[in-house]
Amino acid sequence: MKSDIEICRDTTLTPIDHIAQRAGLLPEDLTPQGSLKAKVKPSILKRLADHEEGKLVVVTAITPTPLGEGKTVTTIGLAQGLAKINQSVMACIRQPSMGPVFGVKGGAAGGGFSQVAPMEKLNLHLTGDIHAVTAAHNLAAAAIDARVYHEERHGYEGFSEKTGMQALRIDRERIVWRRVMDHNDRALRMITVGKNQPGKTINGIEREDGFDISAASELMAILALSKDLADMRQRIGRVVLAYDLDGKPVTAEDLQVAGAMAVTMIEAIEPTMMQTLEGVPTLIHAGPFANIAHGNSSIIADRIALKLADYTITEGGFGSDMGFEKACNIKAQQAGRGPDCAVVVATLRGLKANSGLYDLRPGQALPQAIFEQDEKALIAGFDNLKWHINNAAKYGVPVVVAINRFPQDTDAELAQLKEMVEAEQFTTHVDVAISEAFGKGGEGAVELANAVTRACETPANFKPLYDLSQSLEEKLMTVAEVGYGCRGVELSDLAKEQLAQFKAQGYDNLALCMAKTPLSISHDPSLKGAPSDFLVPIRELKLCAGAGFVYALCGNVMTMPGLSEKPAYLGLDIDNDGNIVGLS
Amino acid sequence: MKSDIEICRDTTLTPIDHIAQRAGLLPEDLTPQGSLKAKVKPSILKRLADHEEGKLVVVTAITPTPLGEGKTVTTIGLAQGLAKINQSVMACIRQPSMGPVFGVKGGAAGGGFSQVAPMEKLNLHLTGDIHAVTAAHNLAAAAIDARVYHEERHGYEGFSEKTGMQALRIDRERIVWRRVMDHNDRALRMITVGKNQPGKTINGIEREDGFDISAASELMAILALSKDLADMRQRIGRVVLAYDLDGKPVTAEDLQVAGAMAVTMIEAIEPTMMQTLEGVPTLIHAGPFANIAHGNSSIIADRIALKLADYTITEGGFGSDMGFEKACNIKAQQAGRGPDCAVVVATLRGLKANSGLYDLRPGQALPQAIFEQDEKALIAGFDNLKWHINNAAKYGVPVVVAINRFPQDTDAELAQLKEMVEAEQFTTHVDVAISEAFGKGGEGAVELANAVTRACETPANFKPLYDLSQSLEEKLMTVAEVGYGCRGVELSDLAKEQLAQFKAQGYDNLALCMAKTPLSISHDPSLKGAPSDFLVPIRELKLCAGAGFVYALCGNVMTMPGLSEKPAYLGLDIDNDGNIVGLS
Repeated sequence: MKSDIEICRDTTLTPIDHIAQRAGLLPEDLTPQGSLKAKVKPSILKRLADHEEGKLVVVTAITPTPLGEGKTVTTIGLAQGLAKINQSVMACIRQPSMGPVFGVKGGAAGGGFSQVAPMEKLNLHLTGDIHAVTAAHNLAAAAIDARVYHEERHGYEGFSEKTGMQALRIDRERIVWRRVMDHNDRALRMITVGKNQPGKTINGIEREDGFDISAASELMAILALSKDLADMRQRIGRVVLAYDLDGKPVTAEDLQVAGAMAVTMIEAIEPTMMQTLEGVPTLIHAGPFANIAHGNSSIIADRIALKLADYTITEGGFGSDMGFEKACNIKAQQAGRGPDCAVVVATLRGLKANSGLYDLRPGQALPQAIFEQDEKALIAGFDNLKWHINNAAKYGVPVVVAINRFPQDTDAELAQLKEMVEAEQFTTHVDVAISEAFGKGGEGAVELANAVTRACETPANFKPLYDLSQSLEEKLMTVAEVGYGCRGVELSDLAKEQLAQFKAQGYDNLALCMAKTPLSISHDPSLKGAPSDFLVPIRELKLCAGAGFVYALCGNVMTMPGLSEKPAYLGLDIDNDGNIVGLS
Repeated sequence: MKSDIEICRDTTLTPIDHIAQRAGLLPEDLTPQGSLKAKVKPSILKRLADHEEGKLVVVTAITPTPLGEGKTVTTIGLAQGLAKINQSVMACIRQPSMGPVFGVKGGAAGGGFSQVAPMEKLNLHLTGDIHAVTAAHNLAAAAIDARVYHEERHGYEGFSEKTGMQALRIDRERIVWRRVMDHNDRALRMITVGKNQPGKTINGIEREDGFDISAASELMAILALSKDLADMRQRIGRVVLAYDLDGKPVTAEDLQVAGAMAVTMIEAIEPTMMQTLEGVPTLIHAGPFANIAHGNSSIIADRIALKLADYTITEGGFGSDMGFEKACNIKAQQAGRGPDCAVVVATLRGLKANSGLYDLRPGQALPQAIFEQDEKALIAGFDNLKWHINNAAKYGVPVVVAINRFPQDTDAELAQLKEMVEAEQFTTHVDVAISEAFGKGGEGAVELANAVTRACETPANFKPLYDLSQSLEEKLMTVAEVGYGCRGVELSDLAKEQLAQFKAQGYDNLALCMAKTPLSISHDPSLKGAPSDFLVPIRELKLCAGAGFVYALCGNVMTMPGLSEKPAYLGLDIDNDGNIVGLS
């Protein structure tokens, strides 16, 4: 079989303005970026205000394994499958970060015959939104350090006299805004900035700092959660960058940098339209990761798609404890609209990897048994799938299990897994379908598409796990105990102090965004299957007043990945004809 | 008078595909980015191979002052003036960096009725080329730190066994590739990376590092100097990132990251076409500063313009000792083609500021006299203009002095300056014209345009100051002594050692790129006018094997600017209609 980029290059694509026109967009709604991608103006939502909204399908998955479950393949495949059965459909996915593209995972455009095209445009820069988020974020960081430097250099009164502006008296030990970069750069996790030659201060004031990956920037979350440009501007103004010497929050508005940050992101707020290999319109917008951020594409993109298509297919990152939880508790509450159906992607080998019966270690060869029939491992791993189905059911939505078929999978074992699902009792409508979207495109996802249309006909009764009016502590408990099924939560002293502080400052009504490993339902990647008897340690909390949530770090979560010994960039190059090779 | 952004917004622009078509481009040469900008494919050069080249005019200036001389205004105005007298003309300028846009200077699109439009697109992101350079640069930085970490963690043999790749044995004390960011961020000049909690090494290996502004990246120079994609790919491969424990250079090719870096810059190699307020086609490409880099837009953009238009107007940053020197000694030698005419921009107030008779300090109010008639100051400042005319003459090109008129300027004083130029004897054709391009657009630059066409009819006898076959030391001496007129050069011990090392490594045939203050012809910003009795101290050299030059730091040159007490971002915002306000 050809590589992803070869399949993509060998497919004849339709000009994006034709795709957009068929989807109901007018030329004035679009700003084309070449012939195969176009920015969509959010002003379209005014024009479409009276249109009824279609159904919102959120694709999630079992607990991910190093093998890859193919969630984006299934998302794109399902959209193509729905188009095959003549449904009006649009997909909404996130923009890939260059960190994973050059790191371990590679691209995030789907794969095989279920890709967003051209995949190399999607995977590299696209229309520059992540760069805009990075630039806006780092402008604020430069602005804080410069302000601290000038205020301390002139003295607070001297600063006011010189500038006519009030001194902010920022506590240099309490600058909470780190810098960001869209790369996996381990060496930037913990740094010292503002270093000087001995006796000099020309480089500012020395302090401990660090970089996160851009996907973890609060501005990325704001981009994904804003309902329009004015909302984005206001949210940016609310972002807390530091605290002053009295412990009062210093916001981007206080620093008078919020306007420039919003100006930097003025084009980023427009989703980018592309197409799947079969011409299904796809909106790409925002790129928060689901482990260290809220893990879902934007509310604006969903709203546009829902107004234009009968089915909007989107995905939440990682397993249903991760992106899907946040799709329901953060995104849906801010959008005022929950999903109508959850699709849980599972694979035979992924379930076996979740059985806990194999010794799987990153960078080591996989045991052969995982690719062969292994009933014991499949049964043991099934617990994980069952957990994710029940988890989605907690939110009151019907569930379709999509078994993403791989070439080595046997019919017998696929049938067995299907039966196992069908034999269980669930509290919601549950259906199961085999998907061959990777190898066959939409044709391979017709069974899945039919299952999804049936599920969407059953009445959904969406409810998030918590109400925003509950206290931060209650919300945290609820996500951990109901959302993960743990025994309880262990708050560090720091976390307790922070909870009290946020409450005192009036932030108790924010949502909760958990940063935890995606490799287990728990906080501990070694706990496989469906663990229950565990305590979730909360190390630290972070306030994201602009995004509208408090970010809780569970255990050892890294907000800046690193490059491995053999990163994906090694194979990337340009051939003699100027084509990109080695991207997958 | 309206602000720049208001003038720009109130001007009716022509769709960029019409502009391009009138300029001789075919639809297949273009990738439109919205209706007002388009990427131009360098493949157009194959189609135009048989076309004769037009005249190349490089706009330079007197020594810059805090008042601004209006070099870009004159560049754009001259292009519009040539169009007014029915010449076929194209302008080529650099992409503005967001550092100055948010810092002190503001935008770099020209001003008044001589702007590139839409100015807010040009000043912010444009088509993402600077972001692409930044991303490619920082990918290499992350790759080095990751490689050092993994090789030291596994041991060199262990690393080879695990990966099948040869250990590079990078000397962690000799990593010469810093990181970059497109902001003025003082705190990042000197940093420590790879810091860890006590006893841990998960964040890599601690070492001293720092960020430069993206405009100073060697990749930015490579973008501006490459003749095509294949050339860019090869140059990136030659970039020296570090030295190994034997002192041998470690290149991007050695690290196997050159391919991915080139892939990251694959769209950046295409110049962006925009238009002036009067519809003159303008190519924007690359953005090296002229103090800390080579300060000229790209060879590819010039080549495209020269094939399509009778006149190509471009500019070198700062005074003729800076960008123009590098246009002649670096860019022209690599392009195999020098300028046909130099335009030296001067202003009455700029010459007075260069007189040394006023006490001008950054951030302080200017003396009123500078805006009024002051013959003594004008005569004293004229030395500076004379120096720059003579300097341009050294390269064998005819010179046109463009006096950029400001509203307060009196006719009498303008006439006096004109006479002063006309009364001098020069070794080349020298003409002088008054330009009112700011207030009147092309109409205000007709006199200048006519002077430029006359100058271009005189035979040019372009010659750079040095030949690449000379030794690095000879080239360095030549630029300092002939290019600046100093008494000699003072090499630090480090610089001497580096010269010997580069020679031994076979880099003696590279060009020389001086990093020095633009505020004096010398290395010392306090030496005004036309200083001569000075020694240029060379602190340090840097090898840019991919760009094809050795970079020499003269005195205290900062490669990362800082934000001032009242940076330009303070006034930036989005109004209620979603328009950008406060950009100039």
